[in-house]
Amino acid sequence: MAYIVDLRSDTVTKPTEAMKHAMVNSALGDDVYGEDPTVNALESKLAAMLGKQAALFVPSGTMANLIAIMVHCNKRGSEAFVGNQSHIFKYEQGGAAHAAGVLLSTLTNKPDGTFDLQELESRIRGTDVHEPITSLVAVENTHNCCGGKALPLKFLDDLSAICKRHNIPLHMDGARLFNACEYLKEDPSRVVRDCDSISVCFSKGLSAPVGSGLVGSYHFIEQARRMRKLLGGGMRQAGVLAAAAIVALDDVVPQLKLDHKRANIMAKVIEGLFLKSFTVDVEGQHSNIILVRIPETSSLTAQKVVARLAQVCLAETQGDCKTPNDEGVIVKAIYFNSKTVRFTIHREINDEALWLAIMKITYVFKELDATA
Amino acid sequence: MAYIVDLRSDTVTKPTEAMKHAMVNSALGDDVYGEDPTVNALESKLAAMLGKQAALFVPSGTMANLIAIMVHCNKRGSEAFVGNQSHIFKYEQGGAAHAAGVLLSTLTNKPDGTFDLQELESRIRGTDVHEPITSLVAVENTHNCCGGKALPLKFLDDLSAICKRHNIPLHMDGARLFNACEYLKEDPSRVVRDCDSISVCFSKGLSAPVGSGLVGSYHFIEQARRMRKLLGGGMRQAGVLAAAAIVALDDVVPQLKLDHKRANIMAKVIEGLFLKSFTVDVEGQHSNIILVRIPETSSLTAQKVVARLAQVCLAETQGDCKTPNDEGVIVKAIYFNSKTVRFTIHREINDEALWLAIMKITYVFKELDATA
Amino acid sequence: MAYIVDLRSDTVTKPTEAMKHAMVNSALGDDVYGEDPTVNALESKLAAMLGKQAALFVPSGTMANLIAIMVHCNKRGSEAFVGNQSHIFKYEQGGAAHAAGVLLSTLTNKPDGTFDLQELESRIRGTDVHEPITSLVAVENTHNCCGGKALPLKFLDDLSAICKRHNIPLHMDGARLFNACEYLKEDPSRVVRDCDSISVCFSKGLSAPVGSGLVGSYHFIEQARRMRKLLGGGMRQAGVLAAAAIVALDDVVPQLKLDHKRANIMAKVIEGLFLKSFTVDVEGQHSNIILVRIPETSSLTAQKVVARLAQVCLAETQGDCKTPNDEGVIVKAIYFNSKTVRFTIHREINDEALWLAIMKITYVFKELDATA
Amino acid sequence: MAYIVDLRSDTVTKPTEAMKHAMVNSALGDDVYGEDPTVNALESKLAAMLGKQAALFVPSGTMANLIAIMVHCNKRGSEAFVGNQSHIFKYEQGGAAHAAGVLLSTLTNKPDGTFDLQELESRIRGTDVHEPITSLVAVENTHNCCGGKALPLKFLDDLSAICKRHNIPLHMDGARLFNACEYLKEDPSRVVRDCDSISVCFSKGLSAPVGSGLVGSYHFIEQARRMRKLLGGGMRQAGVLAAAAIVALDDVVPQLKLDHKRANIMAKVIEGLFLKSFTVDVEGQHSNIILVRIPETSSLTAQKVVARLAQVCLAETQGDCKTPNDEGVIVKAIYFNSKTVRFTIHREINDEALWLAIMKITYVFKELDATA
Repeated sequence: MAYIVDLRSDTVTKPTEAMKHAMVNSALGDDVYGEDPTVNALESKLAAMLGKQAALFVPSGTMANLIAIMVHCNKRGSEAFVGNQSHIFKYEQGGAAHAAGVLLSTLTNKPDGTFDLQELESRIRGTDVHEPITSLVAVENTHNCCGGKALPLKFLDDLSAICKRHNIPLHMDGARLFNACEYLKEDPSRVVRDCDSISVCFSKGLSAPVGSGLVGSYHFIEQARRMRKLLGGGMRQAGVLAAAAIVALDDVVPQLKLDHKRANIMAKVIEGLFLKSFTVDVEGQHSNIILVRIPETSSLTAQKVVARLAQVCLAETQGDCKTPNDEGVIVKAIYFNSKTVRFTIHREINDEALWLAIMKITYVFKELDATA
Repeated sequence: MAYIVDLRSDTVTKPTEAMKHAMVNSALGDDVYGEDPTVNALESKLAAMLGKQAALFVPSGTMANLIAIMVHCNKRGSEAFVGNQSHIFKYEQGGAAHAAGVLLSTLTNKPDGTFDLQELESRIRGTDVHEPITSLVAVENTHNCCGGKALPLKFLDDLSAICKRHNIPLHMDGARLFNACEYLKEDPSRVVRDCDSISVCFSKGLSAPVGSGLVGSYHFIEQARRMRKLLGGGMRQAGVLAAAAIVALDDVVPQLKLDHKRANIMAKVIEGLFLKSFTVDVEGQHSNIILVRIPETSSLTAQKVVARLAQVCLAETQGDCKTPNDEGVIVKAIYFNSKTVRFTIHREINDEALWLAIMKITYVFKELDATA
Repeated sequence: MAYIVDLRSDTVTKPTEAMKHAMVNSALGDDVYGEDPTVNALESKLAAMLGKQAALFVPSGTMANLIAIMVHCNKRGSEAFVGNQSHIFKYEQGGAAHAAGVLLSTLTNKPDGTFDLQELESRIRGTDVHEPITSLVAVENTHNCCGGKALPLKFLDDLSAICKRHNIPLHMDGARLFNACEYLKEDPSRVVRDCDSISVCFSKGLSAPVGSGLVGSYHFIEQARRMRKLLGGGMRQAGVLAAAAIVALDDVVPQLKLDHKRANIMAKVIEGLFLKSFTVDVEGQHSNIILVRIPETSSLTAQKVVARLAQVCLAETQGDCKTPNDEGVIVKAIYFNSKTVRFTIHREINDEALWLAIMKITYVFKELDATA
Repeated sequence: MAYIVDLRSDTVTKPTEAMKHAMVNSALGDDVYGEDPTVNALESKLAAMLGKQAALFVPSGTMANLIAIMVHCNKRGSEAFVGNQSHIFKYEQGGAAHAAGVLLSTLTNKPDGTFDLQELESRIRGTDVHEPITSLVAVENTHNCCGGKALPLKFLDDLSAICKRHNIPLHMDGARLFNACEYLKEDPSRVVRDCDSISVCFSKGLSAPVGSGLVGSYHFIEQARRMRKLLGGGMRQAGVLAAAAIVALDDVVPQLKLDHKRANIMAKVIEGLFLKSFTVDVEGQHSNIILVRIPETSSLTAQKVVARLAQVCLAETQGDCKTPNDEGVIVKAIYFNSKTVRFTIHREINDEALWLAIMKITYVFKELDATA
């Protein structure tokens, strides 16, 4: 069988041995009664790391973001500003509108994951009854669809000044917050300093099996707990999951820099191929996500590239692209659109897997470039 | 007292004498039982004019659009595409999200009221569970925020081809549909030919006191009737309103061309002032709405212009800007944003009012331009 | 053609001549801008009559109730208590749940339109996250499905004491509030004294063609105005409708006692027939609604009774049930369920119509009773 | 420290050793991509056990029920019938209304957990626009608030006949379905035979740490998967939880009879005390839930009883109520209302714990009865 390098997402990471140990050896209780000591420990730990008062463990990042929107947008007729390339807008099924009746107003994301602050300010609504009530601004950090970019601190500072001036809360979808902190070399509490709420995912690069954390003030979390119940996110002996998340914070967060380093290597190799069909922005390579762009004018599509990377041809196994077991390498990737392929590096991609992937990608990119 | 020319909106129009006569002399019944003959007559008449099967009388254009979205977006997790400058997105409080749980996805409106069809097609969602279900595309005709532009038939034809290919219904917010038809010199049934539903407003340029019509297939209207009840839009002896709307269709629609002509005159006069602070796109002057743009770099704001137009200074009454009663002219206008003033011509603006308004606007524009 | 006496509902009433005069002779303006003087006058007048700060004109009683629920139940996860026989629960399509996401919890209505206050108090929710937030109690006065009963003042006083103790607002669906006041011989301001909001219908017994009023504090109405816009209930020259409503308050309210008197006569006549198949609670005959009950054990159904009343047989026209034109009488009625027929007396039922209806009902009831 | 017997709920059960082993030794994958083999195995196994086509693993029973309602009530303006004592109505925060816009209409639960089928049928709505669309009937089995009663098969058969006749789907909240099957000595596939969807909880008596299953047709589960994503119930390596659930189905389900036997013993002991203040319906003791009723006329409250059971007085430890460590026994219980105490037996209550609890309850009940 071919050797598979799964670069589709850092969500595919499986729990570490230490996590497994913690999962079956941690004290448990019924978290719906607030009695799971491991969940409580995780919530305290995460809140402390982010410099906030409280946290809540929830089954997914989608639920964390949805709850944040529900709590902040607590007036009928509320509007939340989000990036047009944000996960909240693109990949959460529009739950804010469907389950919470909130209007999502999009701001055009720039390539660095930010958006125009002047536009934001000009679009904040007044009190006219024709208009919704602007109740939230949400940012994403790192920004997935913009290639894992960490938002500049200056942008966050300027944005928060606007939000404070208009008395609008600020939420950060920090699914990959610790990747941003690693890139910025800043403490998480600094990065989220001016955010009223933050969601953090334990099951992406952090490798825990399930769960996200939602962080904010006591008052915010108290309301979030109600919303979690409403959505059906209350879990019983959730300590089995929280235990893994604690290990993730302790053990995996410090290792994220390895993912970034490996992603950087891959990006540089691809750039160094100097192919007309595939480009990478090595400058903007902040974290563990690598976006490969195909020119709009090319006949190649990202779908085709992804499909080809998942196949092994005879020539590969006979020499050009040899693997430990001589059966070739499959690289799994995803595409954002017809001209963008995404590779994501994570804990399970060690140096061997990295180089096998690079070897395969190089082989395929050259092959496709030659025929494009 | 100063002479007031109210150019804020064509919604300020009051019923004609013929409308008043009809309102108190038409047969009435309880429309909730479907027994108001005048409402039934209006619904039949409007449906016939638009070449569709059925119509429904509702209290407002906002409700007409909301109902259309509710009926078309009948799957949980639905998304409707609308222009980012559309009335639905900007001035209906986001009701589609709040009361109907529908995600509004915005397409950037071009200056002519259209949007990029390639972008639309690329953003239609697939079946991935991360994504909402694209269930509707809505256009606005004429397009208010784009200055009363009539949408080109070619755009509508191309758009409808895309919608049909993807099996997505098409709604037209035709609040000022008859203005569009007047400009295009096309029959309404041609303009809305490929639309699955259309809303038409009787209380804007058509001068009826209250009400809009929602038009579509029998099946669509049957469902719309349920939604109208749910929202509280069912009215009893609504024939008193429908009677005026019938007169509007008969008497006022043919007169809309006068509004267009007068608007054109005003636009040309303003252009002819050759002022650095105020520009008008006479080419794009399709209907009864005139947008005056102030350069971004100017220190003037639309708010200030609107406020000044509503004042009368001594000099005006002493000669420069004399009025029938020597007390000056007030022109009421609104602004869309800090650099855009909107004037709207309507049935109550006869030639005298037009010229008084032009005189006043000329006076104020020159004054402000000199000091800008 | 047979002579038709329409007792289906007081909603079928058509505007009076005075109303028609007012509709075409009142000052109008654009109510969305707050500039319709007639609407403003109506709102002031109604608020004053009810001893509250402010009022809002809306297209229907369903919308008035829906808006009241939306404003009071402004926390996510809110619950409103309503009677299980209330119009809000039975005949407004559940809009509070559908468009406003509010849980309607039903209290079993007693025959007099009240409900058990001890049960209410025991069911008010605490702060447990498993439970919704009790945010409103709504009553109906007079109570339609309970036969137009006026709620006893003592019940209202006791209920409001509970509401105040638990800090829960109280809404009255006063679609027929003035009928209740007439029966109680109390001023409206006394009856609604402890209510935080009240809806009043102008198009039922009051005979105006369209519209309801929603009444409450300044703060309440300010929020209600936003909700009206959201639902599409904002109307332009709504003064044409408000003018009729003002006449209704001035002219028709004082005449409601005639409807009550006539309803009483009809109820007594039916009781006096001493038929086994049809009973009327003359004691509980408070206002203009007469409920005729058929024993559960009877083979007769209300549907059959209603159908028979709408037919004219040969015998009727040949003597037993003669009418002015000798072609018989049709009485239109509705049924609440298979054992309850409802007759509703209103302004258009004068003494002649009353007696023709009574004659016909007597004839049909005897006929059906004989064969039952 | 006192010996604690926690009878508050079977949700407090912790995973068995076999579950822990399975949790860290099962194959994992990313369930959002459908690649977690353990989740897939659980879903197949559960569907097969219930004789249905497909199943879906979700974080909680609340979410399972909410999703079922969302899928079945897919028309705007839908109504779902539920028992007035059902978990869905009482303890799920009304999520069906809040997040899904569904009107919950309650049927009065009888003491055996059923409701009147004639009333149900008479309340199914027609097509009138004033009324919602009846789209679902939901039952609960075993019925928690009715004391863990298993619904009679005859009731389910008669109910399903009505549902089929009116083309309305039937959902079973089978949080404790296997307890019902144990009591009825019926296969689960027989009990749920006529249900269109069923939710089953793994974290109550079945002792798994987290999760519920939702079961139905392929088509139903396909839509449920979308709703799960919308609510944020999609989890990544959910196999860690599913592994425990599989063990629960294999190992714990067959042991539920022990819980029932122990609950029966406790009920009989309490009945045998012949106290005026505390009664138990031993006849109706179907499963693992024991309801102790206090007469309405008693001065005792359930709150007081629960509080007293959680205390240890000196006399208890000095002889009357001795425990292994001589420090007394605490029994944790909950109350449904001021006159009903609930004890729940579960896997962690072995014979020793049972008798310690009985000893303590006997002591306290006698003490309180003497002073009541």
